[in-house]
Amino acid sequence: MIKPQTLKGFRDFLPAEARKRQYVIGTLKSVFELYGFEPLETPVLEYEEILTGKYGDEGDKLMYRFEDNGKRRVAMRYDQTVPLARVIAQYQNEFSFPFKRYQISPVWRAENTQKGRYREFLQCDIDTVGVDNALAEAEIISCVVNSYKNLGFKTLLVEINDREIFGNLDSKYIAAIDKLKKIREDGVIRELIEKGMDSNKANKLVEELLTKPPTEKLKKLFTNLETLGLRESVDFEYSPSLARGLDYYTGSIFEIVYSNNGSSLGGGGRYDNLIGTFTNKQFSAVGFAVGFDRTIEAMEELNLFPDYLAESATKVLVTIFSDELKQKSVDICSRLRLRDINTEIYLGEIKEKNPLEKQLKYADQKKIPYALIIGPEEAEKNEYKLKNLKTREQSAYNADQLISFLRK
Amino acid sequence: MIKPQTLKGFRDFLPAEARKRQYVIGTLKSVFELYGFEPLETPVLEYEEILTGKYGDEGDKLMYRFEDNGKRRVAMRYDQTVPLARVIAQYQNEFSFPFKRYQISPVWRAENTQKGRYREFLQCDIDTVGVDNALAEAEIISCVVNSYKNLGFKTLLVEINDREIFGNLDSKYIAAIDKLKKIREDGVIRELIEKGMDSNKANKLVEELLTKPPTEKLKKLFTNLETLGLRESVDFEYSPSLARGLDYYTGSIFEIVYSNNGSSLGGGGRYDNLIGTFTNKQFSAVGFAVGFDRTIEAMEELNLFPDYLAESATKVLVTIFSDELKQKSVDICSRLRLRDINTEIYLGEIKEKNPLEKQLKYADQKKIPYALIIGPEEAEKNEYKLKNLKTREQSAYNADQLISFLRK
Repeated sequence: MIKPQTLKGFRDFLPAEARKRQYVIGTLKSVFELYGFEPLETPVLEYEEILTGKYGDEGDKLMYRFEDNGKRRVAMRYDQTVPLARVIAQYQNEFSFPFKRYQISPVWRAENTQKGRYREFLQCDIDTVGVDNALAEAEIISCVVNSYKNLGFKTLLVEINDREIFGNLDSKYIAAIDKLKKIREDGVIRELIEKGMDSNKANKLVEELLTKPPTEKLKKLFTNLETLGLRESVDFEYSPSLARGLDYYTGSIFEIVYSNNGSSLGGGGRYDNLIGTFTNKQFSAVGFAVGFDRTIEAMEELNLFPDYLAESATKVLVTIFSDELKQKSVDICSRLRLRDINTEIYLGEIKEKNPLEKQLKYADQKKIPYALIIGPEEAEKNEYKLKNLKTREQSAYNADQLISFLRK
Repeated sequence: MIKPQTLKGFRDFLPAEARKRQYVIGTLKSVFELYGFEPLETPVLEYEEILTGKYGDEGDKLMYRFEDNGKRRVAMRYDQTVPLARVIAQYQNEFSFPFKRYQISPVWRAENTQKGRYREFLQCDIDTVGVDNALAEAEIISCVVNSYKNLGFKTLLVEINDREIFGNLDSKYIAAIDKLKKIREDGVIRELIEKGMDSNKANKLVEELLTKPPTEKLKKLFTNLETLGLRESVDFEYSPSLARGLDYYTGSIFEIVYSNNGSSLGGGGRYDNLIGTFTNKQFSAVGFAVGFDRTIEAMEELNLFPDYLAESATKVLVTIFSDELKQKSVDICSRLRLRDINTEIYLGEIKEKNPLEKQLKYADQKKIPYALIIGPEEAEKNEYKLKNLKTREQSAYNADQLISFLRK
């Protein structure tokens, strides 16, 4: 016997959880499409050389990569931005630019699995490729803010910075600065020194950074955000310590936080050189990735999931009273489905004594809101008894009444 | 520069294709839920030992498997049935049975990529676990037939057989028999002999098989299918040569074909012993997997995709006439989105001479049906000019008229 288990950092999503995930995905998709982003799908496996070297040394280390049966070096999707860059280079003559796409799919990173970090997790990305202007950036940010509002978030803040203010600073130092909110100025200075920076220089760097005014590009972006109805200090703010982990950013960078604890729900930025690793042509690009797991966790915390998701998507369980009455149950089940009512018919064993007891318990456990009963009495009167499993109330209906009640 | 390319057998789905795939997935999901199946998600990677030995030698050979960073032997999902079996064993105390789930996700097989076979492809599965009765099987079949009808298929046939008629026959011989429709009786006999069967025995086996009457279990299944409104010879038929490739089937097996060329769109069957490889408890199970790619190909061939999928999901492109008029364009764009109208604002460069020419061409190329024009004249009159990009007709509206027209 083989032990049934999942790998560390990998998860099963049972129906109640999967329903919530589908709800979030559906909401995001509809807002992404509201802004004119179109769907794109890329493979889980890519040639290794497509992905390596794009995410820093850390990324190469955490990547799932192996040799396939045909002796090719392959790697599993690490994010959705590098595959997009590959797609743009590969199909550049088929696309009209600006090209706006969304992609919602899992990525894999062999992370340390502590603290709610997973090795397989979903990303939800929007990107605009082929234009370098502040309206494109503002649209991306507005779309993400709107997505979260549609999920029920009330207080959200987008922190914005420009990667250019770090000049040629080594990415290991940028990573340290990115922790400013978590480990404070002292912590950052200590980490900079640990990573090899001179103590005076570290102190000066942090002091300078925190007092730097926004760049001209950022000022333009802020104006465009206001054009789209977002308010400075309320919906977005300048954050000179924001740095973002990934290597490929070249300009504006952003992160969305929700005010309960200031933790980041997702982020993005401009990456104007990444696509150039796959083609001689220059393509500007800007994008945002929603952190799906953190979003779900925050929604649980804020109680943002609608009540109906706690119930089964099945509206009614049609019970079977006996072998003789089975056909009646099957018939009404088919009729309900014909009228688009999600209906399950009981498939377990029908006991002769107390045939309904187990069936009603089954509906309760599965959180199906109604059970339909067709016993000898109902069959004779051509009626259906509908039991509300929350209130335990029962009402008798004819077929038409039943359908119109359940369709509500 | 790294060559932008995908691995053989792996595909990108650009927006026009991705839209079609989402449409099929959405239709299948809604019919699966109509029948009371609930969503389940499992990881892409499993411990290798969970998957190996379940699909025959061929399966073990075609599986993507490797050692991860932590020296664990892991394998990529090869189908959705074995992960379901693992899930049932792992969470058996949390589920109420019968447990009905659907799963729609990709699987990986290092197949020979000729003839429209891919190494990464989507599967759409429904399964009912924990009951061994003909109504459960009939419901699965009815749900699949209904799914295809909802996709627009008119003529469909479900071929049905019982794995039990093959008794203890070696699976290599069963695989040969499964080819009867393709390579005829002669071909099957030849292959049986090639695989080591005595010539007399091979001839006798094929002759006997073709004249075998349906088993008692199949007769019961046929009655239940009729109960659900499916007609023998029209919607389903007994097919004694049907064998199905996978090792784990134990009872009824089925395949759905569409009449244009008799090729299979998907299949399934009963597998009562698979879950027992992960737990001491016995669980009956029956399921069906829709072949997504073959379904898409058949739909293309039969022209079953609705016309609207040929257009962008974006309803209207808001053009920008000039820098001075940009705010007006941004404002109406936001208003349209507030009313749930999928709207894109042009993000490319605005030329001073002939500013609209490039923008209208962009809308044409992206198959956006309408373009909105706010030039100096419209701005003064507080009007919006809407251009239908198919008919090239233009009409002027005020904001409310525009919204109510586009919401239709």
